[in-house]
Order: sequence, then structure tokens, then C-alpha cells
Amino acid sequence: MQIVHTKAQLRVLLKQARKIGQSVGFVPTMGYLHAGHASLIHRARQENDVVVVSVFVNPTQFGPNEDLDAYPRDPDKDMALMRAEGTDIAFFPSADDIYPAGYATYVTVEGPMTQALCGRSRPGHFRGVTTVVSKLFHLTTPDRAYFGQKDAQQVAVIRQMVSDLDFDVQIVACPIVREPDGLALSSRNTYLSEKQRAQASGISRALFEAREMILAGQRDATLMTDHIKKRITAIDSAAVDYVSIVDARTLADLDTLIGEVLIAVAVKMGRTRLIDNIRVEV
Amino acid sequence: MQIVHTKAQLRVLLKQARKIGQSVGFVPTMGYLHAGHASLIHRARQENDVVVVSVFVNPTQFGPNEDLDAYPRDPDKDMALMRAEGTDIAFFPSADDIYPAGYATYVTVEGPMTQALCGRSRPGHFRGVTTVVSKLFHLTTPDRAYFGQKDAQQVAVIRQMVSDLDFDVQIVACPIVREPDGLALSSRNTYLSEKQRAQASGISRALFEAREMILAGQRDATLMTDHIKKRITAIDSAAVDYVSIVDARTLADLDTLIGEVLIAVAVKMGRTRLIDNIRVEV
Repeated sequence: MQIVHTKAQLRVLLKQARKIGQSVGFVPTMGYLHAGHASLIHRARQENDVVVVSVFVNPTQFGPNEDLDAYPRDPDKDMALMRAEGTDIAFFPSADDIYPAGYATYVTVEGPMTQALCGRSRPGHFRGVTTVVSKLFHLTTPDRAYFGQKDAQQVAVIRQMVSDLDFDVQIVACPIVREPDGLALSSRNTYLSEKQRAQASGISRALFEAREMILAGQRDATLMTDHIKKRITAIDSAAVDYVSIVDARTLADLDTLIGEVLIAVAVKMGRTRLIDNIRVEV
Repeated sequence: MQIVHTKAQLRVLLKQARKIGQSVGFVPTMGYLHAGHASLIHRARQENDVVVVSVFVNPTQFGPNEDLDAYPRDPDKDMALMRAEGTDIAFFPSADDIYPAGYATYVTVEGPMTQALCGRSRPGHFRGVTTVVSKLFHLTTPDRAYFGQKDAQQVAVIRQMVSDLDFDVQIVACPIVREPDGLALSSRNTYLSEKQRAQASGISRALFEAREMILAGQRDATLMTDHIKKRITAIDSAAVDYVSIVDARTLADLDTLIGEVLIAVAVKMGRTRLIDNIRVEV
């Protein structure tokens, strides 16, 4: 595995790969890698000649009162996991290399897709995501890029951006990886106290139950939303940020559950904000 | 010369060229080509294996009260000029192909660079430019892209975008091509009445005179600006939109003339808005 720290080094390696016709799979991450990331790298390894994994805690996708400075970091463990999954190039850029002095350009998906769900409580978040992903796509020129379905809105927003801006890259969304008790893996789970960690499994339980109800015939979005909110609110130390039932592709609100339905939630456990979601084909 | 009308066709041709290692030069235009465009294509022809010229009157860079519908079009003449200059691929996309229903993504260079000069009288203009140029860069994957120095602010904004978003393309700015009497070539010159056309040469004369004054030692930006305004206002049927003396790279206002100085003007001749500029190394 080659470890590169600058954009210039990365470009040289990718140009060499391109020159001999190799395909490139790219996994952008913010590090502190877990089994969810491993599943992305694993899939990329199966489908491409060269696998690039980036680790960059992207400041532009954090709000002023969010956890940018506290975000967990462990590059040595990250590199071990990358090696184990067969990464060819590990890219650890500095913030100064990604956003040099005088930086001024942003890529924005406008409209409801970035205003709903996490866009409401994290204004500017997706602007940071689409901007850094655009840059990383230009630097890595991937044939395929791999994202976790846990960030369902991020996947939808990036698909929209790729389609709108004519990026020539295939977006591959990989299933959520969960703990044995159902909690979706997240680097932020490390923030949870032991008690919060135990209670957090109630979030996914509420989603699984909702799926069962829909598969059993429930079609009323408002009723389902209220039911999930009640279930999550009943968890000690949990506060609902949002519970949304939307079209999985457009993220438009649904009244009647039909098509590819996405149930997405954000929950605060103390000061930790967790997200989770589930898709149901109705 | 191959003439393509869809993004998909263009992609196929470019992938073939890339596969055999050919370099690509790209000239994005809004059509109604003149000798200025010809100089860009000519330069692209000298420096690349494959020359792509696009013709697209980009709606997102026009304001609601601007001349989108009136903008002159002559695809047959354009194709003749492209052929004469050695174009390999002429790309004439439709607005529906470039901006399909549900389109939502925009690339924006924020801050003073897009707010000064033309940004003041044409809000949103550069957002439209950077968005469509991003898309065209993704579709054509150029090694080099050619722009006319007549649109000096556009060149500066695109350079900033390319640097910020890590586009792997070299921006080549080509000198302004002028009529024998000094008027900068522009597709919009066709709007001018015979009388306006004759008077319009006063714009470039004011710029040439300013350059002489600077080369003779004048360093006071305010004094120079006032002098140019006076000269242009003296032209019958001309109204100054702006006269700006700025740093050629950052477009920041200059008080004292030093470094790479750009003198840029926008002038209304009746309903026609003309721009021109000149660079002076101080």
C-alpha cells in the first residue's frame, strides 16, 4: 500500500495507473474506519484494478457548533484496516492542501434534497460534502466510488450531483453494517457512554418494526412517522431530531407509502447525534 | 469533422481518443463564431491531437432581462469556421441535455472575484459560467481549454475554479482579437447600428491611451479611472457600466498601479453592452 499525503503525489500515481488502462475504485472517508468502511473497501477491491481510500475530516461539512475538533482520529488503525482489505493507495491530505488560502469555490446541490432531513439541522453540511467529493473525484478520477447507505441522504445528493455535473463515475451504495444488536456502525458511536450505547439499539429496532408494519400493509406516512417518533422518544436519553419518510431517490416527502421508500431518522443521545435509515420496497 | 448533438455521443468519441492516448484541446463557445474564436481553435489545433469545440448558448449565465433569446446564432457558418480551423469534434448540445428536468447543482466561485466588474451588473452570470464549464470539462476531459482574454474576468474566475476544485486541465487565455479600428471582436457587435459601430472604437482608444499614460509613469488608479470614464462618456450614445483597474489575477481593486494590472470596462451602446480590457505590466 502506498501512503500519500499530497494532491501532487496522488495525481502522479493515478496517471500511471490510467496510462496502463487500470480501473480505479475510490472510497472517500473521514477515517476512524470500522467494518462499514471495510465493506466499502472490500467491494471496491473486487471491482477495480486500483483501490484508493482517502482519509480527510472535511472541515467544510461541519457546522460552527459541531464536532470537527472532537471527531475521532486513528490513522495507524485506519492504515491497518486499509491494508487488510487490499487498499493500493491511502490518501491522507492536509486541510491546507485541500483548502489553500484564498479558496473560494463551492459545489451545491440546491433545493429540497439538501434542505430536508439532515439539511435542516446541518445547514451547509451537504455543500461541504459535494465540494470535497468533487475535488476528490477530480484528483482520483475513479470509475466507481463507494459510499455507505447509512448516509442515505449523502448518497442521494451525490448521485444528483454526479448526474447534474456529468461526472463520469458510477456511484455504488453499500448496505449499512450493524452491530449484533442492530446499531448502525458509525465513527461517532465512540462518543456514547456505556448506558447510551446499550439504549441506542432502540433506534434500529424502531426502524425494523416500521418496516414490518409497512410490509404488513401500513401505507400512512404520518401514522408511521408518529409511531417511530413515539418509539424513539421512549428510549431514555434519546431525543428525536427528525423522523422522515421519503422517496429514496428524490428524498421528497411521501404521504402514501409507495415505491422505494426511505425511512430516515436522526437522534440525539446526549450530545451525540446518530443517524440511521432503512429502505422498504412497497 | 464529427458533429455530435448529445452528451452520450461526445463521451464515446472522447473515450476512444483517450484510449489511444490522444491529448484533447477544448474550446467552449456560445457560437456565432468570429476571428477571436478562430484564434482559440487555431491555438488548440497546434497543441493537441483532438480539438473539440462546443456551441451552447448557456441559459444559466443570462439574467432574466438579458439577451438570451436575441443572442445571435448561425450554426452553418460556425461549422464552416470550425472546419477551416481544423476542428475534430463539434458539439452542439440541446438545453434539455445540459439541464434536464430536476437539474439542481451549481458550481460557484464566491467572494469579490465574482462580485466585482461584470458580477455587479450581471448577478448569477459567473455561477452559470462555472457550472456549464464544469459540466463541459467533465464531458470533454480536456488537457487544455482555451478562452478569450476579452472575457478577462471569466478567465480569472475559471482559473480560480480549476485551481480550487482540482480540475486537471490547463487554462490557456488567448489575446483579444480586434477590428482594424480597435474594437474588440464580439458576437454582440452585430447588435450595433452603423453609427454605434463607428463610435464603439472609442472604447478601445480610451484603453490604449490609458496604457500609454501608465507606461509613461501614471500610477494613480483613481485618476486613471476618472480619465477613462471621461473619455468613454464623451462618446455619443455610450454609457459607462463600469471602469475598473484591478490586479489581473485576483481582480482586487488597486489604488496604486503595480504588478499585472488589468483595466476592464463595460459600456452600453444603446441597448448593447460591450466589454473590453487591456493588461499592463507595471
